[in-house]
Amino acid sequence: MNEAASTLEGWYALHDFRSMNWTAWKAADDEERAVALDELQEFWNDWKNVEETSQGSTVVYTVIGQKADFVMMHLRETLEDLKAVENAFNKTTFAKYTTKAYSYVSVVELSNYLGKEGEDPMQNPEIVARLKPVLPQRQYICFYPMNKKRELNDNWYMLSMDERRTMMRSHGMIGRSYAGKVKQIITGSVGFDDWEWGVTLFADDALQFKKLVYEMRFDEVSARYGEFGSFYVGSLLNESSLEEMLKL
Amino acid sequence: MNEAASTLEGWYALHDFRSMNWTAWKAADDEERAVALDELQEFWNDWKNVEETSQGSTVVYTVIGQKADFVMMHLRETLEDLKAVENAFNKTTFAKYTTKAYSYVSVVELSNYLGKEGEDPMQNPEIVARLKPVLPQRQYICFYPMNKKRELNDNWYMLSMDERRTMMRSHGMIGRSYAGKVKQIITGSVGFDDWEWGVTLFADDALQFKKLVYEMRFDEVSARYGEFGSFYVGSLLNESSLEEMLKL
Amino acid sequence: MNEAASTLEGWYALHDFRSMNWTAWKAADDEERAVALDELQEFWNDWKNVEETSQGSTVVYTVIGQKADFVMMHLRETLEDLKAVENAFNKTTFAKYTTKAYSYVSVVELSNYLGKEGEDPMQNPEIVARLKPVLPQRQYICFYPMNKKRELNDNWYMLSMDERRTMMRSHGMIGRSYAGKVKQIITGSVGFDDWEWGVTLFADDALQFKKLVYEMRFDEVSARYGEFGSFYVGSLLNESSLEEMLKL
Amino acid sequence: MNEAASTLEGWYALHDFRSMNWTAWKAADDEERAVALDELQEFWNDWKNVEETSQGSTVVYTVIGQKADFVMMHLRETLEDLKAVENAFNKTTFAKYTTKAYSYVSVVELSNYLGKEGEDPMQNPEIVARLKPVLPQRQYICFYPMNKKRELNDNWYMLSMDERRTMMRSHGMIGRSYAGKVKQIITGSVGFDDWEWGVTLFADDALQFKKLVYEMRFDEVSARYGEFGSFYVGSLLNESSLEEMLKL
Amino acid sequence: MNEAASTLEGWYALHDFRSMNWTAWKAADDEERAVALDELQEFWNDWKNVEETSQGSTVVYTVIGQKADFVMMHLRETLEDLKAVENAFNKTTFAKYTTKAYSYVSVVELSNYLGKEGEDPMQNPEIVARLKPVLPQRQYICFYPMNKKRELNDNWYMLSMDERRTMMRSHGMIGRSYAGKVKQIITGSVGFDDWEWGVTLFADDALQFKKLVYEMRFDEVSARYGEFGSFYVGSLLNESSLEEMLKL
Repeated sequence: MNEAASTLEGWYALHDFRSMNWTAWKAADDEERAVALDELQEFWNDWKNVEETSQGSTVVYTVIGQKADFVMMHLRETLEDLKAVENAFNKTTFAKYTTKAYSYVSVVELSNYLGKEGEDPMQNPEIVARLKPVLPQRQYICFYPMNKKRELNDNWYMLSMDERRTMMRSHGMIGRSYAGKVKQIITGSVGFDDWEWGVTLFADDALQFKKLVYEMRFDEVSARYGEFGSFYVGSLLNESSLEEMLKL
Repeated sequence: MNEAASTLEGWYALHDFRSMNWTAWKAADDEERAVALDELQEFWNDWKNVEETSQGSTVVYTVIGQKADFVMMHLRETLEDLKAVENAFNKTTFAKYTTKAYSYVSVVELSNYLGKEGEDPMQNPEIVARLKPVLPQRQYICFYPMNKKRELNDNWYMLSMDERRTMMRSHGMIGRSYAGKVKQIITGSVGFDDWEWGVTLFADDALQFKKLVYEMRFDEVSARYGEFGSFYVGSLLNESSLEEMLKL
Repeated sequence: MNEAASTLEGWYALHDFRSMNWTAWKAADDEERAVALDELQEFWNDWKNVEETSQGSTVVYTVIGQKADFVMMHLRETLEDLKAVENAFNKTTFAKYTTKAYSYVSVVELSNYLGKEGEDPMQNPEIVARLKPVLPQRQYICFYPMNKKRELNDNWYMLSMDERRTMMRSHGMIGRSYAGKVKQIITGSVGFDDWEWGVTLFADDALQFKKLVYEMRFDEVSARYGEFGSFYVGSLLNESSLEEMLKL
Repeated sequence: MNEAASTLEGWYALHDFRSMNWTAWKAADDEERAVALDELQEFWNDWKNVEETSQGSTVVYTVIGQKADFVMMHLRETLEDLKAVENAFNKTTFAKYTTKAYSYVSVVELSNYLGKEGEDPMQNPEIVARLKPVLPQRQYICFYPMNKKRELNDNWYMLSMDERRTMMRSHGMIGRSYAGKVKQIITGSVGFDDWEWGVTLFADDALQFKKLVYEMRFDEVSARYGEFGSFYVGSLLNESSLEEMLKL
Repeated sequence: MNEAASTLEGWYALHDFRSMNWTAWKAADDEERAVALDELQEFWNDWKNVEETSQGSTVVYTVIGQKADFVMMHLRETLEDLKAVENAFNKTTFAKYTTKAYSYVSVVELSNYLGKEGEDPMQNPEIVARLKPVLPQRQYICFYPMNKKRELNDNWYMLSMDERRTMMRSHGMIGRSYAGKVKQIITGSVGFDDWEWGVTLFADDALQFKKLVYEMRFDEVSARYGEFGSFYVGSLLNESSLEEMLKL
């Protein structure tokens, strides 16, 4: 058996993608819509409170195309907290005008962490800040789930720790060359959802997503061992731009 | 032909995943909801009675994310008993506010059982307790179905019994290293559902699911021969926490 | 080119899987439900008449889990007869409370038939009984569709007739060791539906499905060349147990 | 690069599969149904007129099982003509009682055509009759889409023209041995729909579909290089048998 | 690691496929339909304005078959512009009579661009015209998404830059031989949608799509390395032909 890399885990993550039921939204009268937006605003305030008290973090982005209209990305301390925020949304009047589009359950993960012996990494503020991050408010988001392949000769899990470490190092160097341009949050989902990892990228220039993912695809880790799910791309929403988007 | 491992089977299992139709639930009036919850409570009492009389076992957990809102896992003596409990749920008023999300039909299985000759394993109380278990009430559940691969050179079913036994032994050792942390129930579904096995894990710390499944993935049995379906994760519900979840 | 095995065909088969729309069924009033059940009873009488006059055979079983609530398996002389019985069901009042779940179109098939030269197999009563069988009323049914693989080195259709015959013989011996316990009807669907064969098993002990299919999986025919679709399992329904199942 | 075989194209083809919404059809009153059937009859007359004036051809068949209730196969001069006939159907009152089930867009194709130099094949009446055929009114239809595989060592498109020609010749000989029993129309869909070809078979004995497709499966062209989609089988409808099928 | 080809990007693209809800459209009264068409006309005028002021380009085509009834292809400066035009359509009265069918998010891309050092390509009018094109109004459109394969020995991303360049050159020569007959727009979607590229072809003779794509399939780039999604084909719509299509 090959040795698994050690990992550190932080906040649990729920990517909650929703589509608008525009026909229902247009059929509602002005008062119903006002109530719905008020409740949504309240809901949003709750998120901000969670973030201010360091109990989690939430961002909201549009999603371009028909896959969804918006995504709420929530980080919280526990799975129960995630289900609670999911349920709270479902109970709002606004939710009645939306349909479920896709969701992803995972946990913020640092892999190959090499702490000093006898040191508790959760006492290291830098580590804690990466495991329980305030989500960035960049202009664009990109989300996709991924696996490491296990297909005959292209089987990541049959490689030795050394081979994997060497390849991941070169992979990481591409990532680092985008530092400043693209902020990346890796969440692990083995045992939680249908892929092994979720990748969430944040940038102020959406083209950087394309350039980063494309460049990485030529790296052996992705080229031979990467298996990718659907890609979602969108732009930042705040309370006023969401209301703008919903204005008829 | 390779020899198949001998197996022992116990109770049949139905994992019954359901989503809330929140719009219908919110549209119902207080009395309708009260009736629905009363019937659900009665239904729940029936399950408890079944468990107390050792005719089966049932647990209920939330499911995080959009795949479902909750799962009822039922163990019963016969397939007819499973269909009866499924139908009984469908006939409740509460069911009207839910939609089907996923289900899985299997049977509790012990494999590679090496009993003494001439001994009836069903007379061994330890074996019976594993085949007809009271389901644990740990805080978290993880369910996924799986196959052993049959893909060109990675074909589990073309290996000799010896090769399979050696690999399964190393696999089992990982499992054992999680004893106390993760309780695992294996159910066989060859001939019953779309995958060969269902795996249901119970733990008080959901991260242990991730660590166990990830560590196993580097083991040759999983790395080369494991094929996995969707993963579902959730937290324990009892009558009062379910009512809490449904309170508007 | 390799020689194809010769086959004999008998009655056409339609497996017609349906789910109950429980919400609609519960919303109907007693009279509507009574009318629906009366029509269903009449419909059932028609099937019995078909069977008594040796024009076909029909059995009805529940299906465990969410894939369907019940399956009607029809054998008839022609494809037109199958569509007629399908349409007749769709025109009943009862059908309004059901939804389509899955269906499979095939024809009863005997393969590798080695008749004597100059002999018409349809004059052999034993052969006719296998090609136009009265469906067994065992307690349990198991249905799954399957292909023989054509994947690089695992290509059934590139094997010589001799290789295929040798493998099928060993395969058949497993089947025969279950004689009495499991009754098997093979239907061919090349040109009729999405897989090459349908397999329908009948038994009084559902565990025998698991044991038979699992044991066969280690046989080279299944291990290297078998490709399987969804599995459906259920228990026998007659008019009174179906009414029982539908009683609110 | 390997040379592509030259092809000749004739009429465009739309296979338009529809399911009945039986609940809506039964809920309609007699007058509504009469109006719907009258419009359908008019629509059918239009098709006949198209066929009589050699502007195209249309046949209608039932489809056995739940995939669809009937298929309209239209051949027309242009893609606009196909969309027009599709839209015309959608605008009928009858269409309200149907749902979309599947469709396929392609063009009648003769491949490997070896015309004489300087000769315009469209001046050859035999060629034109094959490219712009009156669709046969045999009792049964079978439709399936297919690809030539491109999978590692089984890659049709990496073979030389000679290899492909030799294999296709043997393949064609099987087809010819069914002359009289099965009429075959090949339509090309590269650039038009999700598979490379559509195959439509017509016969007076549906078993011939099974025998032909099964025999071909052992031929290297199909065994190694054939990739098949869903199979649809049905029986001929005319105005009166369609009305019969719809009569409640 | 292999070197990625450098790319230039221009306008973002949204292919927005929609189906008509014909039942709802027919159920609407004349006035409602008139309002819907008026709003659609206004919306169309907005697009034309965008095109005239060089802020983007939009074309509308039918789609043949059941996959969709029409596609709006939008090019715009930013992802926000694309979401805005998508939302604007969703807010029209006309949208109520349509359903979502498929969409694709990408960006106009020139690959292997070899500019002169020190030169800003966006100052080159020829380059700009290709990156921010006015969409052609040819009679037919063909759209399909595609990947370069990463499957064991057929792994595009493991080839050297030289190998890829040589193959792409031969590939490009086929494309050039269709110059005048087929206009091709390549859009990159790595990081934006589920495939790596979108290909949109425009021609006055739809058969040229088939001939071009088929010929390319024998080229090693496609034969060994091309992976294709669904194909959509349709014909040009303008305001009057769309109204014609919608006239009952």
